[in-house]
Amino acid sequence: MSPEMPLKPGAVIGILGGGQLGRMLALAAARLGLRCHIYAPKGDTPAFEVAHQATEAAYEDGEALAAFARSVAVATYEFENVPVEAAKAVAALTPLAPGANVLEVSQDRLLEKSFVRDRGIGVPDFLAVSSTEELDVALKRIGRPAILKSRRLGYDGKGQAMIAAGDDPRQAFQSIGGVPAILEAFVPFLAEISVIAARSRDGSFAAYDIPQNHHRGGILRRSVVPAPIDGRTVEAASAMAMRLMAELDYVGVMATEMFLVDEQGGERLLVNEIAPRVHNSGHWTIDACSISQFEQHIRAIAGWPLGDPVRHSDAVMENLIGEEIDRWPALLAESRLALHLYGKSATRPGRKMGHFTRLMPGD
Amino acid sequence: MSPEMPLKPGAVIGILGGGQLGRMLALAAARLGLRCHIYAPKGDTPAFEVAHQATEAAYEDGEALAAFARSVAVATYEFENVPVEAAKAVAALTPLAPGANVLEVSQDRLLEKSFVRDRGIGVPDFLAVSSTEELDVALKRIGRPAILKSRRLGYDGKGQAMIAAGDDPRQAFQSIGGVPAILEAFVPFLAEISVIAARSRDGSFAAYDIPQNHHRGGILRRSVVPAPIDGRTVEAASAMAMRLMAELDYVGVMATEMFLVDEQGGERLLVNEIAPRVHNSGHWTIDACSISQFEQHIRAIAGWPLGDPVRHSDAVMENLIGEEIDRWPALLAESRLALHLYGKSATRPGRKMGHFTRLMPGD
Repeated sequence: MSPEMPLKPGAVIGILGGGQLGRMLALAAARLGLRCHIYAPKGDTPAFEVAHQATEAAYEDGEALAAFARSVAVATYEFENVPVEAAKAVAALTPLAPGANVLEVSQDRLLEKSFVRDRGIGVPDFLAVSSTEELDVALKRIGRPAILKSRRLGYDGKGQAMIAAGDDPRQAFQSIGGVPAILEAFVPFLAEISVIAARSRDGSFAAYDIPQNHHRGGILRRSVVPAPIDGRTVEAASAMAMRLMAELDYVGVMATEMFLVDEQGGERLLVNEIAPRVHNSGHWTIDACSISQFEQHIRAIAGWPLGDPVRHSDAVMENLIGEEIDRWPALLAESRLALHLYGKSATRPGRKMGHFTRLMPGD
Repeated sequence: MSPEMPLKPGAVIGILGGGQLGRMLALAAARLGLRCHIYAPKGDTPAFEVAHQATEAAYEDGEALAAFARSVAVATYEFENVPVEAAKAVAALTPLAPGANVLEVSQDRLLEKSFVRDRGIGVPDFLAVSSTEELDVALKRIGRPAILKSRRLGYDGKGQAMIAAGDDPRQAFQSIGGVPAILEAFVPFLAEISVIAARSRDGSFAAYDIPQNHHRGGILRRSVVPAPIDGRTVEAASAMAMRLMAELDYVGVMATEMFLVDEQGGERLLVNEIAPRVHNSGHWTIDACSISQFEQHIRAIAGWPLGDPVRHSDAVMENLIGEEIDRWPALLAESRLALHLYGKSATRPGRKMGHFTRLMPGD
């Protein structure tokens, strides 16, 4: 722990990335009397609107990064594809949480899956693939259907291609740009779930109740909490996230996405992906918990005690993607519905423009 | 309703006043994808930190007021002592909600009490007093104990003097500066409560559950919701607030503070004060409701439908006044407690620095 910890009210938190996650982090920080300095490249940066300070500069701009790092008491990121070099440049001048080591692991699917598997935690079968020849070999071992995923820069289903019976593997490899990739077994899962959990500087751990997530076209559509899974599965999922976070010396909120699969009549969990940041499948915590995932992340990186992740209501969160934002007038008129719009200036297909959470009395 | 209504996401809301109420309004607006332009005189202005735009200028600066008014789609105020002339200058150029008429009434205790009484709604006995001679006459009619209150610029117990048996009325009159005042009967109340309610542009009305308020030294210390009052009293209180808001053609959130008094074995309500803004005794709505009083105010002035004021939890809100802000580390560590710090740069005795809300499972 650095000597500046815990932060005092009024301290400035630096956030690399200016999207909706940065915006919601800044709003949570403001509630706690903390200020945010957002660093983001030119683009649509909704986080700038609500921040104490903003720097618009490239992640390759060493001078701007240094000035940013010197202006903040602690830094974090809201986007897992912040270049590792940029994160390291910041970390050289101010505490960075989570660390740059986490980005290195999570930015490369091969490292990420290997990291998880090497801790004895289940993942779908996978093999590294960097040529069509390797792909042919991998397909024989993994079987079909399988998913080819680029090792780097993947999110919201980008850089992925399904290879089912009859599909041409070469075409799939071309469609992801012929870049280094992994071939992963397609898992016929019962449910997709995620563990949204926080780890503090002193190693304490707190996990929210687990949502079930529903994707379409690789993009999260809906999270429903609580997920219809039994108590033992909840405990196992939570223990896996805790183990991974401890191994990463993680500080902050992390999402661990998992598949629940049926195995010989029992339930088994396979880790699909880790996201080293607050996560879309945890947005319901703003409305259904006293302490949201955003406040929890701020508390963790500030060296403050984690909040109680207790949930007061059941919740269903849905994303507003692209033109769906036009539903806002109807949504505003609904009872027990909390609407969140991100203030993005341009609507584009596939772009997350907002979300809403329906609350139901808890159990 | 002006042709610009309802506002579209991305529109700019102007707020006169830069304190914690403006800050929490701006945070609520940001959640809805709206932007805020805060106008406040030089001073500690925590709302500036989270706003899209800020103007630091005097309420007498006509040019700055005009530029502010032209930059926003609708304007509101977070402080009932914004000069009426400033409010009128803004209202001449952009829709202002609530209107300047409300400020005229609420800034003058004599007009305010008369307005309420003339609608057939109970208030403590009062008489206008502008000299020691008038005070002597009034004291004979009202009796002791009584409270002398300056007509203008009173809040948080300022400009008030109790006159009990044996007290020198001249000294009381001097202590409030010898300004025009009212003498009000001291009411031995069972409880202080407040109705936090919203009225929309189309006249619809929504009231939150009623908190019981506890003051010390004229400053709100604690609000507890629900107040221990019976259903008929709740309905009567709500009906009074609705009546007053309709008569004022009110748009936005208003607080009506009331005394619950015992009268010949029954309960009776007397209106103590109206506050034409979001109110300290409604801060618990941030944590105990889907739609906070701040979002509700933004919805109302934006021409949007009011949110359902349903409450998911019981709550106790306490203020952090002056040095009490130093309790923040202990409060952060408490379960089911939401801490709110206002980011004020200087701590002063009597100054509201933050608040916290304890949630309990609802009934």
